[in-house]
This record gives sequence, C-alpha cells and structure tokens, in this order.
Amino acid sequence: MSDGLIKPRTHIHRVRVEFGDCDPAGIVFFPNFNRWMDQSSLHFFVSCGIPPWRELVKTRGIIGTPLLEIHTRFVKSATYGEELEVHTCVEEWHRKTFRQRHIIKRGEDLICEGTELRVFCVRDAENPDRLRSIEVPEDIRAACS
Amino acid sequence: MSDGLIKPRTHIHRVRVEFGDCDPAGIVFFPNFNRWMDQSSLHFFVSCGIPPWRELVKTRGIIGTPLLEIHTRFVKSATYGEELEVHTCVEEWHRKTFRQRHIIKRGEDLICEGTELRVFCVRDAENPDRLRSIEVPEDIRAACS
Amino acid sequence: MSDGLIKPRTHIHRVRVEFGDCDPAGIVFFPNFNRWMDQSSLHFFVSCGIPPWRELVKTRGIIGTPLLEIHTRFVKSATYGEELEVHTCVEEWHRKTFRQRHIIKRGEDLICEGTELRVFCVRDAENPDRLRSIEVPEDIRAACS
Amino acid sequence: MSDGLIKPRTHIHRVRVEFGDCDPAGIVFFPNFNRWMDQSSLHFFVSCGIPPWRELVKTRGIIGTPLLEIHTRFVKSATYGEELEVHTCVEEWHRKTFRQRHIIKRGEDLICEGTELRVFCVRDAENPDRLRSIEVPEDIRAACS
Repeated sequence: MSDGLIKPRTHIHRVRVEFGDCDPAGIVFFPNFNRWMDQSSLHFFVSCGIPPWRELVKTRGIIGTPLLEIHTRFVKSATYGEELEVHTCVEEWHRKTFRQRHIIKRGEDLICEGTELRVFCVRDAENPDRLRSIEVPEDIRAACS
Repeated sequence: MSDGLIKPRTHIHRVRVEFGDCDPAGIVFFPNFNRWMDQSSLHFFVSCGIPPWRELVKTRGIIGTPLLEIHTRFVKSATYGEELEVHTCVEEWHRKTFRQRHIIKRGEDLICEGTELRVFCVRDAENPDRLRSIEVPEDIRAACS
Repeated sequence: MSDGLIKPRTHIHRVRVEFGDCDPAGIVFFPNFNRWMDQSSLHFFVSCGIPPWRELVKTRGIIGTPLLEIHTRFVKSATYGEELEVHTCVEEWHRKTFRQRHIIKRGEDLICEGTELRVFCVRDAENPDRLRSIEVPEDIRAACS
Repeated sequence: MSDGLIKPRTHIHRVRVEFGDCDPAGIVFFPNFNRWMDQSSLHFFVSCGIPPWRELVKTRGIIGTPLLEIHTRFVKSATYGEELEVHTCVEEWHRKTFRQRHIIKRGEDLICEGTELRVFCVRDAENPDRLRSIEVPEDIRAACS
C-alpha cells in the first residue's frame, strides 16, 4: 500500500462451539475463548513452518511459548452449534517477548479479541524442573514475518 | 484505620493443582488460572450471602455476571500437587459494572494476578436467548461491601 | 444387502488434538476422548435433522440426552497436532434408552472406542431443578434410523 | 474380621462442583466426573507415599498410569455449589494391570461410580515418544495394600 503499511501475516483457526463448552447460562464458558486463542497461537507457528514443541524440545530445548500476560475483551456471547474464526497475528516482536493478537469472529460479528504477551522458554540445564526464558530465536522470527 | 484506608472484603479460594490441569510442559495450562479466578469470583458472592445464580435466576432473573474484560499477568509457573490460594475482592463498583481483583499465591510466592470487569445480566423478556446487562443491584453491592 | 445386514447410520466428527488437550506425559488427557464422543453424540442428532437442545427445550421441554453409563477402551495414545475421526452410530434403541457407539481413529489406527447409554430428559413440571427421563420420542428415533 | 473380609485401603478426595463444571442443562458435564476420578486415582497413590510422577519419571522412568479401560455408571446429577466425595480404592492387582474403583457421593447419595483399568508406563528407551507398559512394581503395590 502506498502508505507503507504492511499487514502482518495472519492465520485463521476455525472452531466449532460445542455443548460442553457452554455453562449453565447457555453461553461459552469464557476460559474456552482463551483456550481457543492458545490453540491458534500454536497453529500460527505451525502454519509458518515451525515444528511442534515436542520436536523443538528435542532439537533445541524449546518447550513452547508460555504466557506473561493476557488481555481479553468479550463483546458478544456465543453458544453451541456456532462456528467461530480466530484470526491470529504477531503484532509486536521484541528481543525477549512477542505479542500475539487474536480476534474471534462469528461471520462478521466480533465476539471477543485479545492479546497475549509470550516468551520462548527452555528447560534450565541445572534444574530441568525450571523453565528459563530465552531471546526470540532469529530464525523463528524470520519464518513468521 | 487512621490513614483512612479501608481494605476491601477479601475471599480466599483454595485450589489444588491436578495432573490434568497441566500441559505437556508439565505446568498449569493457563486458562485454568482464569477458571480458578472465575470460581473465586462466584465464591466471593456466595461468601457475602448472595444465593447461587440458579436461585437468583428464578427470583430476579439474574443469570450471573458475564465478563466484559479480563487482564491477567502470569508471574511464576505452578504444577500438580501444589496448593494455591486465590485472594479475591471487588476493587471497583460502578453503576453498571464492577471490577474484581484476583491474586493467586503459592505460600508467599505470587503465581499470577488479574482483574475481571463484569456485569450483572438477566434474560431479555422478549427473547430469552439474549442476555441483557442491568445496573448493579444495590442490595447485592451493599451485601458485598 | 443380500445377507440382510444393515449398517446403522454413522456420523463422522473430525477433531484436531490441541496442545492443551494433552497432559504432562505429552498424550491426550483421557476425559477429552469422552468429551469428543459427547460432541459427536450431539452432532449425530443434528446431522439427522434434530434441532439443538436449546430449541427442543422450548418446543418440547427436552433438555438433552444425559448419560446413564459409559464404557471406553483406550487402545493407542494420541498427541497434539494429530487429526482424529470419531465414528458415531446408535447401535441399540430401547423404549427408554439408547446406546451410541463411538470409534475414534487416526487414519487406519484405532485410538479408542466406547459406548454410551443415554436417555432423553425433560425438566420436571413441578420442580424445574429436577430432570425426568422420558420414552425415546418416536419421531426422533425415526429421523435417526 | 471374623468373616475374613478385608476392606481395601480407601482414599477420599473432596471436590466442590463449580459453575464452569456444569453444562447448559445446569448439571455437571459428565467428563468432569471422570476427571475427578482421575484426580482421586493419583491422590490415592500419593496418600500411600508414592512420589508424584514427575519425580518417578526421573528416578525410575515411570510417567504415570495410563488408562486401558473405564466404565462409569451415572446415577444422579449434581450441580454447582455442591460438595462431593470420591472414594477410591484398588480393587484388583494383576501382574501388568490394576483396577481402581471410584464411588462419588454427595452426603449419603450415590452420584456415580466406576472402575478404571490402568497400567504403569515408562518411556521407550529407543523412542522416547513411545510409552511402554511395565509390570506393576512390587514396592508400589506393597505400599498401597
């Protein structure tokens, strides 16, 4: 575009809302929206050619991208039988963290949207029970841009 | 207190982290933290003497307190076998909304913390499939302060 | 067919195993298999033209098909990134109950299989908090055969 | 006892049913019962002095006790705000498998009951992505009897 704006690479994850995803009010129990965003976060990387964490943990020690922070805004409720789309991109890359944005839509309706601040982690060499954050790997960032 | 600070009423909800709450990295799958905050949100009201939603829906049409927004910051990971405490209070009451704060601790360690912006809802009289927000009921607010 | 065998109507429900569906051993946390069978149970009825429960509850009081009994056999483990198929049919119709069979496959591999004994329920007229089982509605049975 | 009956060691796991555990019919979404039985299965071992799997995997390679088969009978429904007890014992030890029995009660009421056939597993030395069943370790069996 002439104004130099480049839309970031976006992955669309399709979700069907199921009966068991809904609460006694008959609407999606909200942590499921965050679960679907988490699914879409990983699918984004896989769609960029990054191997699943269970492979990366063997080759590079990376166990995944734990969350530092989430922020979610719920706009409309949804219920079972409906099809939703999670539109996911990385909106900011930092040296040690990155921020993903997820927009969940039902057709043209905005259902909810949010951001996740994440960090790549490896198991600590001394104490494998501890996770340690690392800098965002250059090759992964390049593959996702 | 002489400095005029009044600490808001706080409810403590105890949670034991279970094997099935954890992901392949061996740590709590994060939407469970939001699930535990949601549990604590309701226990807060029950501890103030408010009947469960399934009673309120019959007497006053109130189906619960759906979320408008959440913000969560994850500080340390947790794993199964650990006991956590969710410390919950209402930190702001507005005319139509209220904000709950949840602090999740393991002993003295801060695991995560967050806020939830919520609204009381009733079923729409014309279309019971639709939820409609109402003003925060005065008596409920009074009972919780 | 000349030998008189009639294969019952079968619905196939596709599931993608997600990271958050797996436990610290890296494999599907088993109640998720039962969750996917439950999803497929409902999709079976919808694929036969039966309205979702939230419609049936308004027109006929039917709130769904609670379970009386499940039996599941787990044959192979599965992990995230894999695509599964749930093959679902009704293998027995009785006067008050019916038995659904679910077979979960990954390609040609059998992952798990099980049966569910279910019953149609309505809310009790006197006490709407109570559910009461009814005979299998003739029209629903006919639509599903 | 004079009649020669020995009641097997039983562990009681207490569960509070939460709003988010319930479905649009207002009752516990059934896979949660199996989740609570799974929790109780592990608590049984811990109560017998067995270390959690994340320790056993380091010292002996044991990743847990995956399921071969479950059978659950649902007797009464339950809803949020209720306290349940899961009574768990091992009712059969075999060379390679064992069967746990779980009875879920609300006060004196039987809510559901079921058995789980489980097997101890280790990671395959050649291919750590594969799990391999082993004979029930003698010391673990002894500690639990």
